[in-house]
Amino acid sequence: MTLSVDELWEDLLAVRAQSPLVHSITNLVAMNFNANALPAVGASPVMAHAHEEVADMASIAQALVLNIGTLDAYQVEAMRIALARAKQRGIPSVLDPVGAGATPYRNQAVEALLGVASPSVVRGNASEIMSVAGVAVTTRGVDSSAAANDAVRAAQALARRTGGVVCVSGQVDHVIGADGSWLRLKNGHAWLTRITAVGCSASALVGAFCVVQPDHARATASAMSLLAIAGEIAAEQVLARGQGVGSMQALLLDRLHLMGRDAFAERLALEVDRW
Amino acid sequence: MTLSVDELWEDLLAVRAQSPLVHSITNLVAMNFNANALPAVGASPVMAHAHEEVADMASIAQALVLNIGTLDAYQVEAMRIALARAKQRGIPSVLDPVGAGATPYRNQAVEALLGVASPSVVRGNASEIMSVAGVAVTTRGVDSSAAANDAVRAAQALARRTGGVVCVSGQVDHVIGADGSWLRLKNGHAWLTRITAVGCSASALVGAFCVVQPDHARATASAMSLLAIAGEIAAEQVLARGQGVGSMQALLLDRLHLMGRDAFAERLALEVDRW
Amino acid sequence: MTLSVDELWEDLLAVRAQSPLVHSITNLVAMNFNANALPAVGASPVMAHAHEEVADMASIAQALVLNIGTLDAYQVEAMRIALARAKQRGIPSVLDPVGAGATPYRNQAVEALLGVASPSVVRGNASEIMSVAGVAVTTRGVDSSAAANDAVRAAQALARRTGGVVCVSGQVDHVIGADGSWLRLKNGHAWLTRITAVGCSASALVGAFCVVQPDHARATASAMSLLAIAGEIAAEQVLARGQGVGSMQALLLDRLHLMGRDAFAERLALEVDRW
Repeated sequence: MTLSVDELWEDLLAVRAQSPLVHSITNLVAMNFNANALPAVGASPVMAHAHEEVADMASIAQALVLNIGTLDAYQVEAMRIALARAKQRGIPSVLDPVGAGATPYRNQAVEALLGVASPSVVRGNASEIMSVAGVAVTTRGVDSSAAANDAVRAAQALARRTGGVVCVSGQVDHVIGADGSWLRLKNGHAWLTRITAVGCSASALVGAFCVVQPDHARATASAMSLLAIAGEIAAEQVLARGQGVGSMQALLLDRLHLMGRDAFAERLALEVDRW
Repeated sequence: MTLSVDELWEDLLAVRAQSPLVHSITNLVAMNFNANALPAVGASPVMAHAHEEVADMASIAQALVLNIGTLDAYQVEAMRIALARAKQRGIPSVLDPVGAGATPYRNQAVEALLGVASPSVVRGNASEIMSVAGVAVTTRGVDSSAAANDAVRAAQALARRTGGVVCVSGQVDHVIGADGSWLRLKNGHAWLTRITAVGCSASALVGAFCVVQPDHARATASAMSLLAIAGEIAAEQVLARGQGVGSMQALLLDRLHLMGRDAFAERLALEVDRW
Repeated sequence: MTLSVDELWEDLLAVRAQSPLVHSITNLVAMNFNANALPAVGASPVMAHAHEEVADMASIAQALVLNIGTLDAYQVEAMRIALARAKQRGIPSVLDPVGAGATPYRNQAVEALLGVASPSVVRGNASEIMSVAGVAVTTRGVDSSAAANDAVRAAQALARRTGGVVCVSGQVDHVIGADGSWLRLKNGHAWLTRITAVGCSASALVGAFCVVQPDHARATASAMSLLAIAGEIAAEQVLARGQGVGSMQALLLDRLHLMGRDAFAERLALEVDRW
């Protein structure tokens, strides 16, 4: 497998042109940022969780993104209904197991969802992915307590189970496909972890990119590299102005919106490999 | 009917002076932006949805704003209780039927609310208003799929039914009153549709303006023109700085906060008509 | 009791070094801003409310922060479970009684929580604290309708009851300890009241500081002074740029993130007294 800058860039152009409708059932903290990140790249967000309508909304949407950051029983059931419909329709689905490993309930919720359908992509930090893969790990809240590299084997095991893509976010982002693909993305900036909802928005973008790109490992790499490079540029701008993490939120959305091919091509640090 | 710049401007000064308390039951995505938009213009927000207190809060508030963007059965019942109290007290109420037409459940919820009381103002995009008016329309998520002009007749039918005001947002905003008034506002900027919660905040501002201005068509035009002109200025500032939709959120709130009479008067593009 | 700049500054350095994990059950409006304010000062946020996991999350966290701004029966029960666990573990807890006095239901919820355990710190505006202390007061939504000074006696009564710290926010912030300590903080800026979720975030920061500083009156003063001074600087920057309250949100987070010792020391206006 090779993957050129042109191919990744083409995926962004396709999102901008097709404006895929992404149905998110996500955590209460991230909702607003997610709903701004999708239009910034040209996609359309819709949020709905009522049991009475969640299958209908998943029937209109072109991708489904599930995030358990502030889960409760009602929401998990909404996710189950929506995921079943997404499976039935064959649209891509993304699971972001926020805080997996932090409590038994989160693990049970993830298992319940995996029992309904295997998501096209599971995206989380190292400790979340290790937890979902069944590797013992101590999660400290929603931050990762294991290095991303340690989680690669867990991601491979999980990809074998789901038959899809698993993405481990960290200093290096690893995109692991059940087909043996292994993409390593070295872009990003430490401050991205200090802005709430960036990871959740990464998952939302992955959902949008999977609509336009049927190779979901490539789609995941396209979405993650866009966000990581936007984060690099935003952080540099913020630092140059003597500003901090507060100002970075808006500039990150700006860069998602205004990303140009030259900046993207110049910065992209993606290794294509197999496992 | 005529409507001068001075009259619209007077409404803003009245909001700033009286700081009306607006009770919102709104969607989870828009809550924060709404709660910042109201103080930016000088109004006070309060959010409450518990069945145990929602009537009490509606008894303290000076306007009620309902938004079904992320509705569920509990929230719809909260809206019914609050709307009944608002009707009993005679305070203005605004309904924002986000995503009406997208699912049968949203249509049922809107019908249930209209059965409790006719809102002073219904504000939505073209496909939402057409759906509420019972005109067949295909809604694509929460974006409008019908041109605003096509929705004017639907808005007139809906205004006849409610006896109040119906506002169709779009490239041109149409404010249709049951009394035959028809205001067409040509201000605004395309990027306003790429920031989440702008429409929802428009509804919140309409609620605040209806407190100080008993002519609700005029109040709606005052609120919508303030937001649209603030959006124009914010977009120009953002573009001049090479920024994007992320930066526009803050600048939009800034312009709501700092709007001056001269800029408002110079830009206002409002046509006053009758139907 | 004396309290030097060095001592307050030491608390901030300790938060930055130890990155305490703060479990918040907070209102839907404030969640995102809260979750950004904690990382800005170096702390880690986690939000969880499901009855199935809320005790487990409170068992991992180092502080618990409860905010009733958009309460309902499910959330109040989640708070009760979490507060009982926090008491059992002896970790600090903060109660922010948003809108206390506005409805009977809010007062009942506060009483129910105080019945489970006495929070380490109760933080609210004057009318909220007076209401929690049982002093008759007319609350207008979530804004304070009584001057902060009038609430000091109510705060003293409440501190006697809880045996902990009570903080009354206003033009002057009063930190009242059951041990007789009385800290008066004169920093801040009027625009802080026009940004949603600043008060809620103050409570979240107080929780983080109580983890690293066992003298909770001092911890409260450290957190409140950091936020107030960050607000002063942010407001000055915003005004110098001709911007408004929208731009102030990001700059406030920036200043929390980048606060330097010199600016902090130069501006601190704290009186140490006893009652």
